Amino acid sequence: MSDLDPGLPWLDALKWDEQGMLPAIAQDASSGRVLMFAFMNRQSLEETINSGTAVYWSRSRQRLWRKGEESGHIQRVQSLRTDCDGDVLLLSIDQAGGIACHTGRASCFFYQLQGDFWVATDPVLKDPEDIYGK
Amino acid sequence: MSDLDPGLPWLDALKWDEQGMLPAIAQDASSGRVLMFAFMNRQSLEETINSGTAVYWSRSRQRLWRKGEESGHIQRVQSLRTDCDGDVLLLSIDQAGGIACHTGRASCFFYQLQGDFWVATDPVLKDPEDIYGK
Repeated sequence: MSDLDPGLPWLDALKWDEQGMLPAIAQDASSGRVLMFAFMNRQSLEETINSGTAVYWSRSRQRLWRKGEESGHIQRVQSLRTDCDGDVLLLSIDQAGGIACHTGRASCFFYQLQGDFWVATDPVLKDPEDIYGK
Repeated sequence: MSDLDPGLPWLDALKWDEQGMLPAIAQDASSGRVLMFAFMNRQSLEETINSGTAVYWSRSRQRLWRKGEESGHIQRVQSLRTDCDGDVLLLSIDQAGGIACHTGRASCFFYQLQGDFWVATDPVLKDPEDIYGK
């Protein structure tokens, strides 16, 4: 993978994959925790920057996924970074409600490897039924 | 994507993609900075856990990539997490030399969006020629 050309306009400089996607990492601006990982296409990234709130592309639902559209747990984007190759996005965000995960936890990365198993180490802050309704 | 089943042995619980890969995020254990993003297959993840140092799968070179094998900038793994779906890995690591990027910077995520362009905001800590030789 060749290095990003910073002389190009930002959207053209990025190395979109064959499906027109880029992986995106959302990191909490205050705690530094990595909160979630998803994908963006060009349209979702443009809307993210224009609106100031994170918009992903849902590959399972094949549509724009305005994070927080159901839960209210929107992500206000403080800054956007990319890597040396320009093929990954890193968003520094403020997480509304302090909950990024559909399980009601702060971060989606709540499983830690302990021995031969994944152990859920983080507390559920809010019951998903109270977030999404039954 | 269904949620991870924590009752399965850890390697089987993960949702490997069609190419047998998982995205992996390396985060600095002390600073909390996201340092790099790469891929792992089952073999590289097993070697990572057994050796305690990060081993990726290089898709461009189609071989195991023992991070630091040329540069000496190895990554000692402090803990390993996965997300609710079990389809992304998050490594908390100690970065040897304080340099993760082939450009000689601390993190690969050194480009920040400023207006319509990506701006390299982080200093080069060591000349790549001094890392890799000419």
